[in-house]
Amino acid sequence: MASVNENLLSLSSNYLFAGIAKEVQAYRVTHPEADIISLGIGDVTQPLCPAVVEALHRATDEMARGDSFRGYGPEQGYEFLREAIRQNALLNRGIHIGADEIFVNDGAKSDTGNFQELLGTDNVVAVTDPVYPVYTDANAMTGRQIVTLPCTPENAFVPAFPQQHIDVVYLCYPNNPTGTTLSRARLSQWVDYALKNDVLILYDAAYEAYIQDDDIPRSIYEIEGARACAVEFHSYSKTAGFTGIRCGFTIIPRDVKVKTSDGRRMALNPLWNRRQCTKFNGASYLSQRAAEAIYTTVGKEQVGATIRYYMENARRMKQALQSIGLQVYGGDNAPYLWVGTPEEEPSWDFFRRLLSEAHVVCTPGVGFGPSGEGFVRLTAFGQRERTEEALQRIKHIY
Amino acid sequence: MASVNENLLSLSSNYLFAGIAKEVQAYRVTHPEADIISLGIGDVTQPLCPAVVEALHRATDEMARGDSFRGYGPEQGYEFLREAIRQNALLNRGIHIGADEIFVNDGAKSDTGNFQELLGTDNVVAVTDPVYPVYTDANAMTGRQIVTLPCTPENAFVPAFPQQHIDVVYLCYPNNPTGTTLSRARLSQWVDYALKNDVLILYDAAYEAYIQDDDIPRSIYEIEGARACAVEFHSYSKTAGFTGIRCGFTIIPRDVKVKTSDGRRMALNPLWNRRQCTKFNGASYLSQRAAEAIYTTVGKEQVGATIRYYMENARRMKQALQSIGLQVYGGDNAPYLWVGTPEEEPSWDFFRRLLSEAHVVCTPGVGFGPSGEGFVRLTAFGQRERTEEALQRIKHIY
Repeated sequence: MASVNENLLSLSSNYLFAGIAKEVQAYRVTHPEADIISLGIGDVTQPLCPAVVEALHRATDEMARGDSFRGYGPEQGYEFLREAIRQNALLNRGIHIGADEIFVNDGAKSDTGNFQELLGTDNVVAVTDPVYPVYTDANAMTGRQIVTLPCTPENAFVPAFPQQHIDVVYLCYPNNPTGTTLSRARLSQWVDYALKNDVLILYDAAYEAYIQDDDIPRSIYEIEGARACAVEFHSYSKTAGFTGIRCGFTIIPRDVKVKTSDGRRMALNPLWNRRQCTKFNGASYLSQRAAEAIYTTVGKEQVGATIRYYMENARRMKQALQSIGLQVYGGDNAPYLWVGTPEEEPSWDFFRRLLSEAHVVCTPGVGFGPSGEGFVRLTAFGQRERTEEALQRIKHIY
Repeated sequence: MASVNENLLSLSSNYLFAGIAKEVQAYRVTHPEADIISLGIGDVTQPLCPAVVEALHRATDEMARGDSFRGYGPEQGYEFLREAIRQNALLNRGIHIGADEIFVNDGAKSDTGNFQELLGTDNVVAVTDPVYPVYTDANAMTGRQIVTLPCTPENAFVPAFPQQHIDVVYLCYPNNPTGTTLSRARLSQWVDYALKNDVLILYDAAYEAYIQDDDIPRSIYEIEGARACAVEFHSYSKTAGFTGIRCGFTIIPRDVKVKTSDGRRMALNPLWNRRQCTKFNGASYLSQRAAEAIYTTVGKEQVGATIRYYMENARRMKQALQSIGLQVYGGDNAPYLWVGTPEEEPSWDFFRRLLSEAHVVCTPGVGFGPSGEGFVRLTAFGQRERTEEALQRIKHIY
């Protein structure tokens, strides 16, 4: 009989957000009259912008005619999109990345989950605590040793460098779940640390579009030396409301290397290319044309307006929650607010109380790691009116 | 320094089709005047059918309005599609599969590549030879032992049961690359073998829509007992021309189990659910609505017409190639023809000769495994006129 991958047995039976959805669904069944507002899962609510909609219709029409139909695209993504990314997301910030260092995907979750396949099981992997659970779960499925770097109000949610030897570190800034950021100076120190200690940085920049301050880097490649030590994950999910459309990209500079047991150094770029060619058939052509459209002049404006809308939500949320005496972090350069529970109430208790008393869904901080205990994550991705309504309800239960 | 997954080093540097594309591209550069016709990679050429196009436009319009916008969908796929599959691809054939046993994906390549993550590295995996390289490459990346089951004209391309112990077997019928099929009687024997020997069958049914004969099962679940030993992969790529749209589904009956080291039996269904929730965020909403449309009355008719078009290509190809004395297998219930090279010419030599003398691209059989030496694969997915032209050219070089 086939044997199971025993590493899977070490995981909790539910992925965090699937577990929350289940609990909310159970509440709905027993309270069908409840008008529930979700500020829990980081899902967007605003429609696709007109430039994207137009691109989708146009691409659909192309697929309807024999002379413009497209079948399999390149596993790495279409040249038109890789080139648009290179010019509009990188070169415009002074970052020199070749189109062949960009891999288009069906969303950052897939790539942040799958990238560890390129690495030996003996690598020691560091993650922040709290953390986006995909990094830890994906590595746990392979049986890798994981080191956690606590991020708390005491260290302003900036992890200290590990005291022990590590090989790989996941960093996500603007951070999910805390909504906090790394300054240019601090990110430079991380790059220096990585170069000095031969550590591979897996940098998740899924929320870079929400950065407002000039001092905060939008890409790790703004830092000198990062080309030699960092892989960066991007997503259109939050940038352009693509959570249902599925598209993103990963940057793997040719200079980033790993070692073999016989002492050679190998570039990760061709290895990822081999992985993708074998197990992935490219993102939908429609999704790639949609992504291309956000780099047009009108697309940039429209996407920018949606981001401003969400950031205005964040501003109002932060103000309202602080006005009732809650500790609130993040929300200034990120769509997430990291909120201390009143009187350090356990986060699952607060989650359930908020659900039953205010009919508002949050994400319990401890679901992101032990240092998340006593916090919940709220997202600014709601509709304005519903977000305001949720804030009123939260005020009421105080 | 991070270490590489050493198993990757055992792979050839190129994925088969990426390697062929490279060689064809090199020829194009040196012969820009050549009018190349590809009967190589199994990619479709006919446009999306009107029902699908309409569904895509409609879904795009939904995404353009705040009141009908959809963000993240269920990782397992939308209920509307799982239910359409259950009723129109399974129940209509007397197959009882629950919607929660169906997982929608972004194409069968992803799932056939990723499914092995659920299994221990100690499993012995059998594949046919020749074989779709994803099965072997994905397992080689994990360092698993692979046993090959030769499929040749001598055994009518039906693999014999392995003489040694195996835990898992991949079967793909209608077969890629040989275009041959398994009769109901023979597939029943495989199910019996699997039940008796506790072997997990990973059944790739990507080409089932091309089956013409009533005696050939379109799903392994038409065979009694398969619910307890088989997982089945489906694709819309070939069924409905979705190679650029990216959607498919995998069936994992709750009865299919694997063992743990402490002797328990675990269902694969919840394990795959956990894997997908962690590393996948669902297929595009647009792609899922497109897939739903092929199950409407008009969608079925339109998709059927395209399949008849390709099968008419196959018929003409088989006739033409046989008329010049070539041995041709497959093509009756599958879109692939498996063609013996003249005088047992090595398949890469024949590939290069066909490219340079006829400007026709085929796939060298040996790329699918050693038993593919002396064969090439031709696909019936071309446009009619181009396919006829390719046949004329092939006749000319004889």
